[in-house]
Amino acid sequence: MPELRKDPVIGRWVIISTERGKRPSDFPIEPKKRTAKLCPFCPSNESSTPPEVFSLRTNGEGPNSPGWTLRVIPNKFPALRIEGDLNREGEGIFDKMNGVGAHEVIIETPDHAKDLGDLEVDEIKDIIKAFRERILDLKKDARFKYIMIFKNQGEAAGASLEHSHSQLIATPIIPKRVIEELDGAKKYFDYKERCIFCDITRQEINSKIRVIIRNEHFVSIAPFASRFPFEIWIMPINHSPAFENIKDDCAASFAGIIKETLTRLSRALNNPAYNMIIHSSPVGSDHHNFYHWHVELIPKLTKVAGFEWGTGFYINPTTPEDAARYLREMKIEA
Amino acid sequence: MPELRKDPVIGRWVIISTERGKRPSDFPIEPKKRTAKLCPFCPSNESSTPPEVFSLRTNGEGPNSPGWTLRVIPNKFPALRIEGDLNREGEGIFDKMNGVGAHEVIIETPDHAKDLGDLEVDEIKDIIKAFRERILDLKKDARFKYIMIFKNQGEAAGASLEHSHSQLIATPIIPKRVIEELDGAKKYFDYKERCIFCDITRQEINSKIRVIIRNEHFVSIAPFASRFPFEIWIMPINHSPAFENIKDDCAASFAGIIKETLTRLSRALNNPAYNMIIHSSPVGSDHHNFYHWHVELIPKLTKVAGFEWGTGFYINPTTPEDAARYLREMKIEA
Repeated sequence: MPELRKDPVIGRWVIISTERGKRPSDFPIEPKKRTAKLCPFCPSNESSTPPEVFSLRTNGEGPNSPGWTLRVIPNKFPALRIEGDLNREGEGIFDKMNGVGAHEVIIETPDHAKDLGDLEVDEIKDIIKAFRERILDLKKDARFKYIMIFKNQGEAAGASLEHSHSQLIATPIIPKRVIEELDGAKKYFDYKERCIFCDITRQEINSKIRVIIRNEHFVSIAPFASRFPFEIWIMPINHSPAFENIKDDCAASFAGIIKETLTRLSRALNNPAYNMIIHSSPVGSDHHNFYHWHVELIPKLTKVAGFEWGTGFYINPTTPEDAARYLREMKIEA
Repeated sequence: MPELRKDPVIGRWVIISTERGKRPSDFPIEPKKRTAKLCPFCPSNESSTPPEVFSLRTNGEGPNSPGWTLRVIPNKFPALRIEGDLNREGEGIFDKMNGVGAHEVIIETPDHAKDLGDLEVDEIKDIIKAFRERILDLKKDARFKYIMIFKNQGEAAGASLEHSHSQLIATPIIPKRVIEELDGAKKYFDYKERCIFCDITRQEINSKIRVIIRNEHFVSIAPFASRFPFEIWIMPINHSPAFENIKDDCAASFAGIIKETLTRLSRALNNPAYNMIIHSSPVGSDHHNFYHWHVELIPKLTKVAGFEWGTGFYINPTTPEDAARYLREMKIEA
């Protein structure tokens, strides 16, 4: 069973994988070469993954057979395990608990050659609806306090398989970074009686200088205090605390802005590796007046070095105004 | 002038380099090849760096000429600028100020072929004394609230030059990560009336399972909630808030444990890239009963992926107990 351990000073929890413990020789010295071996996410290889928990199919065949357009499976090497109780306990000054949680993989397309941004808007909309479906299902499990959807695209971003996929992780605690966001947003709300994300979105839409694109329900911006060059946030324009309450028309608008944002990013930076994360309200929370879900998209262009690790204080060599203008003004065919 | 910008939700400050703004084409697609071009940190190339602010010399020659054993220079491409005032101001909902600060480079050896761990204990002791010297000097500048020493070793850790060096950065604000440490340590002190780092160090020394090595004044441990495989902390055994108050005998002990820890790490993991950071008390602070300086050493073995970015919640595939045992039990020649 993986173990959750809490840093006694900072209060940050860490997942320690006690089972598949890596020894020094397990860490590659050279970057992995791309090999032509069997892809477990391709059609006809369904038996090389754990049995699916959700799929979209066009041919009416049964589960775990070809004919799907989207497939959700438990992660074969989960960071957290679905079975068991938390069993919080101490070890002297330290605190730990069992690594209980869910870790699923959303295989976004049967086509091994396509990235998320290459898919049609309708296909991306199906992926969004699959995210929604899985979150609504896992919210029923009272052990889970937070559910996060994220995507690692490219090896530099930590993807271990190249076939396009996202991941879902449900955790028994609210992660520290999320608590910081909630605390900051609540403090602002207590003072102003307005949602800080609504205020940011409004100011950005009015000033235009950091806007990349907008459509009916969403806006893509380069955030004012971008940590990384070409960092992008996608914000719902209207106040909306939890991603999983997204309506179908809004999901279509979200799919559209994801496609256009990723297309501009990959043209500008030659298909960079990136991490994309949906930040949403914790499960069963009453953060509904001050929190506002959004996407954070981080292209992997620079390396995080000692100064950033030590301080949590980032050095960004590209202004968000330059990044936004570049992405906004570039020509892409309709 | 670089600009400091504050994330309005989280409160995290970011340095935005407004001058040498990087455009998309400035980010390398392929990793840089090692080229045999002139190294600005090698002896006889002193004129290719800014004039030195400190050096140790064996030959009595003047500054900025060969004959040094250690040299401190301002960073040629500083993240922060030494001149000017902060000029805090708003931009609608957002906050910013000028990027005032110091950014120096400590060239640790004239020998291009040696890494920090290859140097003699006495040479490492000189480096520690140079750190101390520079911090004591910069503490006189009332604009600086925090001074951090860090080292990026290897390209994967963000080092842009391979000649062994550390960096010093003095910032006009206390970085968020440091505030979190101070807050956590203060909360513990308020409750227990003891320093949390002293308690951690004592527990680790008694239980031995996460100890790598110890000497008279220091202990190297794999921390209980390690974020990364083979993460190491070097702790002063006796309570000591600020690194720059280190006495000479203690500096010799610190040099000894740095050398042995780095030697074990590079044997175990085939000379990995790493970040090493000295965490110390802020300038002019009254944190002297509850804060305890220490080193955090992070080998770069895994990539930080979307889940970690989104949550601040790390997944570590190697238990600290395994890492400590491996590093402790390995044979190294005396």
